[in-house]
Amino acid sequence: MSLIVVGSMAFDAIETPFGKINRIIGGSATYVAYVATNFVTPVQQVSIVGDDFPKEEMYALAARGVDLQGVEVVAGKKSFFWSGRYHLDMNTRDTLVTDLNVLADFNPVIPDAYQGTEFLMLGNLDPAVQLKVIEQLKTRPRLIVMDTMNFWMEIALPGLLKVLKKVDVLMVNDSEARQLSGQFSLVKAAKEIMSMGPQYLIIKKGEHGALLFHKDLVFFAPALPLEEVFDPTGAGDSFAGGFIGHIARTKDISFENMKTAIIVGSAMASFCVEKFGPEKLRNLTRSDIDDRIRQFVDLVNFDIKLV
Amino acid sequence: MSLIVVGSMAFDAIETPFGKINRIIGGSATYVAYVATNFVTPVQQVSIVGDDFPKEEMYALAARGVDLQGVEVVAGKKSFFWSGRYHLDMNTRDTLVTDLNVLADFNPVIPDAYQGTEFLMLGNLDPAVQLKVIEQLKTRPRLIVMDTMNFWMEIALPGLLKVLKKVDVLMVNDSEARQLSGQFSLVKAAKEIMSMGPQYLIIKKGEHGALLFHKDLVFFAPALPLEEVFDPTGAGDSFAGGFIGHIARTKDISFENMKTAIIVGSAMASFCVEKFGPEKLRNLTRSDIDDRIRQFVDLVNFDIKLV
Repeated sequence: MSLIVVGSMAFDAIETPFGKINRIIGGSATYVAYVATNFVTPVQQVSIVGDDFPKEEMYALAARGVDLQGVEVVAGKKSFFWSGRYHLDMNTRDTLVTDLNVLADFNPVIPDAYQGTEFLMLGNLDPAVQLKVIEQLKTRPRLIVMDTMNFWMEIALPGLLKVLKKVDVLMVNDSEARQLSGQFSLVKAAKEIMSMGPQYLIIKKGEHGALLFHKDLVFFAPALPLEEVFDPTGAGDSFAGGFIGHIARTKDISFENMKTAIIVGSAMASFCVEKFGPEKLRNLTRSDIDDRIRQFVDLVNFDIKLV
Repeated sequence: MSLIVVGSMAFDAIETPFGKINRIIGGSATYVAYVATNFVTPVQQVSIVGDDFPKEEMYALAARGVDLQGVEVVAGKKSFFWSGRYHLDMNTRDTLVTDLNVLADFNPVIPDAYQGTEFLMLGNLDPAVQLKVIEQLKTRPRLIVMDTMNFWMEIALPGLLKVLKKVDVLMVNDSEARQLSGQFSLVKAAKEIMSMGPQYLIIKKGEHGALLFHKDLVFFAPALPLEEVFDPTGAGDSFAGGFIGHIARTKDISFENMKTAIIVGSAMASFCVEKFGPEKLRNLTRSDIDDRIRQFVDLVNFDIKLV
C-alpha cells in the first residue's frame, strides 16, 4: 500500500554512437518499477500495453514485487513504440518514430486495492491522463511526484498547468524548465515554476547532475563521471524510480530526505546508462547499489574550515 | 615567500546580454592576485604591462599585498587588450579583438626575492613563457599549477606538452580536456592527460561545476546556481586564485585539501561573475567569503544511510 507508479510500458528502438538495438523493453513506468522495487514493494503499476508485450517481462516484474492489476492489456493492439538516435554528446537525441498505439486511448483505471496509497509517481504522459489518476484517488497521497516533457508544454499547456497545481514535486530537465518558465536562469525558472503549484522542483541536467529547489533552499547532486555512457534511454525514469523508491521506503518527505533521495536517484541513473535499455537494472544487488552510493559520497564529500 | 603568480595584466572590452563596457581592468594574473590575496600575502606577481596600465590599479594591488617587483612596465607601449562578446548562455563567447601589445615580447624575469617560493600559479600564457618561469626557479616549488587554453593546443602543442611534464596540477575546461586528450569521455580524457605529466587534473565546466582527478580518485564541486550571471570574464582565473590561495594558506597539498581548495575556488568564481570584470573582487570581506562557502556546503551536503 505504499507506491503507485503511472506511465508507459513500451518497446524502444535505440541508436547510439556505440550500437543499435531494434527492439528492447522500454517505457517510463517500466524503468521506474525496475528501480523502485529495489527499495519498496509492492510497486502498484498503472499502465497499458498491447498483447505484443512479452509475458516473460510481466512475470519478471511481478517477481520483483510489481503489482500489475492496474496494467491494462489490450488484445489485438500493439504496445507504445518509440525510436530514437543519440548524438555523440549523448545529451541530445532525435526522435525517429513515435507510434502511440495503445497509449492513444489510455484511460487509466485505479484498482480498488491501490486506494490509500501514500506515494504517487506520475511518469511522463499526457497531463489529462495524469489528472485522471489523481482524481480517482479517494485519499490524497502524502507526496505526488510528476514527470513531464517539452512535448506537453507545446501541445497541452493548459492541461499541464492544471495538473501542476495538484502535485508536490515536479521533475523536468533544464531546457524544459526554461521553456515552462520563460526564464533562462535556472534559479529564476525554479521560482517561477514553484509559483505554478509544486512546492519542490527537480531540474535534471543529465551528465551535469540535478538540482532540487524548495522555497529558498537549493541542493545539487552531481552525475557520476563515467568512462562510458552507453545508452541514456531511461536515465531520467531510473532517477525518478530511485527518488520515489527512497522516499517510499523511508516515508520521510522532508527536504533533507529528498536530498538523499536525489543521490539515490542519481546512483540508479548511473547504472541505467551502462547498458542498452533496462538491462543493467534487472540484476542489481543491494551491495551494487550501496557501492555506487558510496561513490557519490566520495565524489562530493569535503571538509572545510571557514577562512 | 609563499606564492608566485604568473600571467597577463590587461585591459578588456566586454559585451554580454546585460551590458557593455569598453575598457576595464583584466588579465589572468590580475584576477588571480585579487582573489589569492584574500588568503595569502604576499602574492609575488610576474607580468608585463604598458605604460597605459593605471598606476591606481598597481597601488590597489600593492595595498592588498601583491608584490609587483616581477611586473615589467614597458614605456611607450600598450598593455595587452582583449575584447569579447558572450552569447546568451554565457558559456560561449566570441573573441572580437586580441592585441598582444607588450605580451608579444614577454620574457619574464623572476626577481631574486621570489626564489624559494613554495607555490607557483602559471596563468594562461604561451607555454614557452610558462617554461621560462619554471626554469628560472632554483628550488622547485612544492606545487606548480598551470592553466592553459585551446589556442596553445592549436599553435604550440609541442611546447605545451613540454611544460605539462613539469607541472603538478593542470586546469582546463571540458572542451579543452577533450581537445588535448582526443577523448570525449571526461574520465578517459583525465587518464590520458594525467599520463602526460600532471598528477592532478582539474576540469572546469563553467556553470556545471568542476572535477578534480588524481589517479583513480575523483571529486566534483558544483557551481553555485545564481539568479544572474552578469559577466563570466575572469571566472576561471578567480577559481584558480581561490584554489592556489587556499593551498598556499594551508600549505597542504593533499588530495583531501585540494577538494576544499576547489570549493574555495568555486566560491570565488561565483563572486566574480556578479559584476563586470574584477569589480566584485575588490572589496570582499572575510565574512562575505565565509558566507559564500557556507552556501556551497549547504548546496552539496547530505546525510545518507546505505540501503
